[in-house]
Amino acid sequence: MYGLIGKFTATDGARDELMRHLVDGSRDMPGCHSYVVAADSTDTVTIWVTEVWDSPDAHMASLDLEQVQAAISKARPLIAGMARIAETSPPSA
Amino acid sequence: MYGLIGKFTATDGARDELMRHLVDGSRDMPGCHSYVVAADSTDTVTIWVTEVWDSPDAHMASLDLEQVQAAISKARPLIAGMARIAETSPPSA
Repeated sequence: MYGLIGKFTATDGARDELMRHLVDGSRDMPGCHSYVVAADSTDTVTIWVTEVWDSPDAHMASLDLEQVQAAISKARPLIAGMARIAETSPPSA
Repeated sequence: MYGLIGKFTATDGARDELMRHLVDGSRDMPGCHSYVVAADSTDTVTIWVTEVWDSPDAHMASLDLEQVQAAISKARPLIAGMARIAETSPPSA
C-alpha cells in the first residue's frame, strides 16, 4: 500500500472553499482506500491531507481523472502553498 | 470530527514490531473512524499515525481501553521518540 501526508496553505479566508474542492474531487477514486481532508485546529489557513492508496501508480492515475482535474483547476487559485510531508507504506491489513 | 497526525521514532530495528503493536491495539475502537499506521518511505525508524475520531473525548476514552493499555506497555520500550504533528478538524461528511 502507498500513503501520503500533505499540507496545503489556503489563501486568506479560502480554507473552507478549498477543502470542499479537495473533498469533492476525491470521492470514489479507484485504488484509494482513504483520503482525509482536515483543517488544522491551530490556525485558519492550513489543511492536512492524508491518503492511502493501493500503490503509487493508483495515486498517479487519479491525477488524470476528470473530477480531479476539475477540482485542481478550481482549487489552484485558493492555494498559497503546498508541501509533501511524508510518503509512507501503510501495512496491507 | 477530530483528527490527529503523529510521528513515532522507533528504536533501531524495532519499527515493524512497534507498528504491529500500534495496529493491534487500535482495532475497532469506539468512535474511531480511521487509524492509519504507516512506515515512512525514506528511513527505517519513522512511523506516521493519522487518526480520525468522533470527538476529542472519544480519543481520550480510547486510552483507557484494555487493548490500548496493553499495546502501550508493549510499545513503550520500542519508542525512541514521539511528536504530535497536528490536531485537526476533518469535515463530518
